[in-house]
Amino acid sequence: MNIAVNPGRKIIGRLARGEDLLAALEKLALDHGITLGEVSAIGAVSQARVGYYNQAERKYYYIELARPLEILNLIGNISVKDGKPMVHAHVALGDKSGQAFGGHLAPGTLVFACEFTIQEYQSTKALVRQMDDPTGLFLWPPE
Amino acid sequence: MNIAVNPGRKIIGRLARGEDLLAALEKLALDHGITLGEVSAIGAVSQARVGYYNQAERKYYYIELARPLEILNLIGNISVKDGKPMVHAHVALGDKSGQAFGGHLAPGTLVFACEFTIQEYQSTKALVRQMDDPTGLFLWPPE
Amino acid sequence: MNIAVNPGRKIIGRLARGEDLLAALEKLALDHGITLGEVSAIGAVSQARVGYYNQAERKYYYIELARPLEILNLIGNISVKDGKPMVHAHVALGDKSGQAFGGHLAPGTLVFACEFTIQEYQSTKALVRQMDDPTGLFLWPPE
Repeated sequence: MNIAVNPGRKIIGRLARGEDLLAALEKLALDHGITLGEVSAIGAVSQARVGYYNQAERKYYYIELARPLEILNLIGNISVKDGKPMVHAHVALGDKSGQAFGGHLAPGTLVFACEFTIQEYQSTKALVRQMDDPTGLFLWPPE
Repeated sequence: MNIAVNPGRKIIGRLARGEDLLAALEKLALDHGITLGEVSAIGAVSQARVGYYNQAERKYYYIELARPLEILNLIGNISVKDGKPMVHAHVALGDKSGQAFGGHLAPGTLVFACEFTIQEYQSTKALVRQMDDPTGLFLWPPE
Repeated sequence: MNIAVNPGRKIIGRLARGEDLLAALEKLALDHGITLGEVSAIGAVSQARVGYYNQAERKYYYIELARPLEILNLIGNISVKDGKPMVHAHVALGDKSGQAFGGHLAPGTLVFACEFTIQEYQSTKALVRQMDDPTGLFLWPPE
């Protein structure tokens, strides 16, 4: 499945220390009424929590990284789930030895410093997440 | 070497489970006639194969990651090689412990779920990959 | 803090072998007079040096990765510090076993091959980095 989109608003800025990274990005989408778009960020977190999807069990497991980490990168998108903007982002993180970790950005990842971009897309068609039976994930429609 | 480009079409969507990630992105470029652009993606793969270029030997080695992994991020570009659109992308991947891996995206990386963006660029000048003697890689022209 | 921006010029290209990656990106921003924007890159380096910020000590530590590595991804931004364009970028790197590393891109990271994009932003308001007391980092203003 793919759709053509046009660029909408572009918003850049910083998040406040202590904010939950995922919740802060979703709040920005909600406050600006952005239901389709792209996000990116770099910065650092005081702790992280990332998901790994067990494809055989069709279940997310969460990994707690209870230490300060650099955000090597965060990329993701904004679309609609349950009638609200949902941010789906993945994150790579680096520790004090330079070792990298990462996964699906989950609640519980706390901002130390973070610079983000949000690119809104305009489209004649909304992208709405719905349960995808083959994977067990909330995905965009297959066609 | 650098050129100024203008934005062309933007396409976003999801890839189908089981597709070869690199081949699927190249097929999208080919189907849409995109010969210059940028790609990004997040998602998960059922297995991955990534290249590492041995700079001294001037030779790619391939690393098989024969297990389900999160796509922490994929970024890359589209330009022309041998008269066809070629996707050059690098990928970072996360395993069930949150450990990160990655390299040059190679054939043999299979989609479990994947959300991508393709941004076409318009330019008065095509970017064509050609053998670059100093590195042994197919790169854009130096000037 | 967040601001709305409009797209300006987009420049893509390759860096020359042996260049310092961060200095080369900053030179591009300076040469093109870009004071606000976004950067991305993939490629390979002959050696890397990345920063990790110790949040408790409020001090950067630098990690030397004295070996050839793939640039899994580099993302970052351009804004103003001390009256000049400053590139703030984070980088993820992969070694010959596919293991990933990364941090805050620091001087001493040398290009083997690198393909970059720079997206200029236009804004009525400049983003200027200044010392942020709560973190000890040079950040954009909180409001």
